[in-house]
Amino acid sequence: MSEPHNYHMMPKEFRHYGKQVIDWIADYYEQVEKFPVLPTVKPGDIYAKLPDHAPQSGEPFADVLRDMNDIILPGVTHWQSPNFFAFFPSNTSGPSILGELLSAGLGQQGMMWLTSPACTELETRVMDWLADMLALPEQFHSTASGGGVIQDSASGAALCAVLAAREQATDFAANSNGANGKLIAYISTQTHSSLEKAVKIAGIGSANLRRITVDEYFAMRPDALHRQIQRDRHAGLVPFFVCATVGTTSSNAMDPLPEIGRICRDEGLWMHVDGAMSGTAAICPEYRHFLNGIEYADSFCFNPHKWLFTNFDCDCFFVANRAALIKTLSILPEYLRNQATESGAVIDYRDWQISLGRRFRALKLWFVIRHYGLEGLCYHIRRHVQIAQQFAEWIKASADFELAAPAPLNLVCFRHHGGDDVNKQLLERLNKTGKLYLSHTVLADRFTLRLCVGQTTTEESHVCAAWELIQKIAGEFHKLKFF
Amino acid sequence: MSEPHNYHMMPKEFRHYGKQVIDWIADYYEQVEKFPVLPTVKPGDIYAKLPDHAPQSGEPFADVLRDMNDIILPGVTHWQSPNFFAFFPSNTSGPSILGELLSAGLGQQGMMWLTSPACTELETRVMDWLADMLALPEQFHSTASGGGVIQDSASGAALCAVLAAREQATDFAANSNGANGKLIAYISTQTHSSLEKAVKIAGIGSANLRRITVDEYFAMRPDALHRQIQRDRHAGLVPFFVCATVGTTSSNAMDPLPEIGRICRDEGLWMHVDGAMSGTAAICPEYRHFLNGIEYADSFCFNPHKWLFTNFDCDCFFVANRAALIKTLSILPEYLRNQATESGAVIDYRDWQISLGRRFRALKLWFVIRHYGLEGLCYHIRRHVQIAQQFAEWIKASADFELAAPAPLNLVCFRHHGGDDVNKQLLERLNKTGKLYLSHTVLADRFTLRLCVGQTTTEESHVCAAWELIQKIAGEFHKLKFF
Repeated sequence: MSEPHNYHMMPKEFRHYGKQVIDWIADYYEQVEKFPVLPTVKPGDIYAKLPDHAPQSGEPFADVLRDMNDIILPGVTHWQSPNFFAFFPSNTSGPSILGELLSAGLGQQGMMWLTSPACTELETRVMDWLADMLALPEQFHSTASGGGVIQDSASGAALCAVLAAREQATDFAANSNGANGKLIAYISTQTHSSLEKAVKIAGIGSANLRRITVDEYFAMRPDALHRQIQRDRHAGLVPFFVCATVGTTSSNAMDPLPEIGRICRDEGLWMHVDGAMSGTAAICPEYRHFLNGIEYADSFCFNPHKWLFTNFDCDCFFVANRAALIKTLSILPEYLRNQATESGAVIDYRDWQISLGRRFRALKLWFVIRHYGLEGLCYHIRRHVQIAQQFAEWIKASADFELAAPAPLNLVCFRHHGGDDVNKQLLERLNKTGKLYLSHTVLADRFTLRLCVGQTTTEESHVCAAWELIQKIAGEFHKLKFF
Repeated sequence: MSEPHNYHMMPKEFRHYGKQVIDWIADYYEQVEKFPVLPTVKPGDIYAKLPDHAPQSGEPFADVLRDMNDIILPGVTHWQSPNFFAFFPSNTSGPSILGELLSAGLGQQGMMWLTSPACTELETRVMDWLADMLALPEQFHSTASGGGVIQDSASGAALCAVLAAREQATDFAANSNGANGKLIAYISTQTHSSLEKAVKIAGIGSANLRRITVDEYFAMRPDALHRQIQRDRHAGLVPFFVCATVGTTSSNAMDPLPEIGRICRDEGLWMHVDGAMSGTAAICPEYRHFLNGIEYADSFCFNPHKWLFTNFDCDCFFVANRAALIKTLSILPEYLRNQATESGAVIDYRDWQISLGRRFRALKLWFVIRHYGLEGLCYHIRRHVQIAQQFAEWIKASADFELAAPAPLNLVCFRHHGGDDVNKQLLERLNKTGKLYLSHTVLADRFTLRLCVGQTTTEESHVCAAWELIQKIAGEFHKLKFF
């Protein structure tokens, strides 16, 4: 450096403060159980604690770290607490955090092969590994007609799938505008909201989105799907896209992939399979059957950032025919032209996603897979399922509670017999203790509690304590007012 | 932990390996100038060095770090080298890397206020700081009608802008399908490719995208824009969206915001301003004039991950009227309902972007602004501009080279007098030395070299050495074959 003081954090300082941050994170994980899972801050509290204006002069890094403790920590929801059972998990792990750190340190921009060959080829390799780990059919490998790409989230993957399906249905016409008012997309009443958002973004039109009814287990009814497709064709419309879900967000329902898949094949519709959380389970041979029927799919995604110990964002999106995706998303201005791209011998992942730029996200996934090995990953997935199944047994054996839906894996939907008001109050009181965090859904018009086991350090003891707390607080209701 | 060996990297190991990774990164920055900026690997080299299958058992972290050196490092393009002058920069800094590290460590999921109040409110505050730093009009602040949100990239921001404009133009109709074949979007022939992609994604149709001609400095011609809007209205079409650029990717051309803005105001069109790289310069009062006219804009974005020492991904997207954006992108399923959201007292940033999930990206931006202070940030922006201007002077004074476009800030477009073939070969030979990395564009049908000064540690000495190398290699041509 030519300047004695040029404002940069020099490598020597980076070593010093970087190690403090590493310790800060390790301390955090050692203490995370002590914090209330949901913070007690009110809207505006954190905003008000921060200065009105950016500092004119630089501040010591020690002050920043102090404010991490004093301002930020009291305002975070502790997703990494073993007592976090809400929504779907968003877990992480040491190797993943260090992979993200190296990604930030290398500062790669992986939009094209040329701008980072290692970023591109490590991603291709790791996605091929995952295709094998999940026993995906050959066509989802880069060595065949398809391949995988890391997206930011299942929302991004869903949008790419809808767009490729839209373009394919309109023969990749130069002036495709998708929303000719004729294209019809199919989801179930339980499909994740990101599909509705993708269909809206793609200009298909909300009236052209069909929500197919579900059976008593909240899984899409293939007969209803088939009838609706016939009805739409009869009306002169053009069915083009179906999303089937492996583990819905609401209740972890499993749509019947083989039946839906055969309909998509016979009718020539793009089949997207959303396995955001539960797709991960298929790395264990005994749970692979949840992906039976995936051979009919045109695209599939699951999120290592949910249940595979890899910090957000990391959605793995596989397509059977990469040409359809690339034809949809490729745009090549002069300033990005280069010999490698024009040789056709390389992958440019910018043509597989919405944005041009991309981080080196394959690093964290590579670190996680290498650190745990397939053995370690399966061990933890099985453990989470076993703990959740134990909880489901307790619910079944209870006089006061019932299961609200089947619990095929690590999510248990349950409710107190006391009705919606009791369940709402129960949820509120439970979360107010700070000892755990559960979320809710509505199933068959009834308010339902959800307990999902998937955070990295959740053990049987945490779910045991949760069950005791649930019973205790429900018992207090009993005495007080509801019965 | 209840298991003696449960495959996790425990906090003690995390401290150990984390500090090794911190040192690895510091070592990297100390050595980065020694590596060829562009790697010499061939397509498939890295892929072939990686095992065919994921490991069955976990591997020592030391092996992973070894492979970072042996496999990954030889395959990366060194974006963080001070001799990287290609494309636009994608710079970073110590505080940014540590902010990203803490974001990964905390493992927050900031989709809603409730799921991380601190993630939400720090972002709101930092975006308000930036609105002040750029002297954006009041309406772009969260305290007024609009506000800012961190997007993954300018591509994501452009898509959000196009979508909000589409919905506004169709009165937020429940079944808006956008691509009714009537909506017309306007960009210039020089606008970034992400706008073309956004218009395609939104289902507007490529035939409904107008590329307005530019003047001799490659800036959009407002008269041509105005005439085209009139022509389209006359044909019964519905103009709805214009993108103006502050610093085009090709040549850093500045579209005339005030003139374009007045047309958008008079015609009722959504005006998006893309300042991906050059918007950053507006934090320096002497460069703020490049944003004159921003008061007419409905949305604006710039990328701290390009030129503000914050690692990718970090695009700052501001809207004047947040209601239009939220009405466009909000979808609320039961399993995400909560009191905070329903109170209306909080921001749920998932309604400001394409995806549901989001990282705690405000941390790195907060760290960078606090570490450098406005003073330090301005110091480096000014320094980059001065160095680039010095290079432009050398080009102007040279007998063999000429400027290919004005150089208002830190990008210099230039060419040798020898014609396209000489310039193509010159570029190839320069980049093959490994001593620098330049990229190219085509301006007025002529092959043009681009030198952009924006990486964190680029000093005058690096640009001096680049100019010497350019002259030397051009001189060898002189002797050999071209003249």
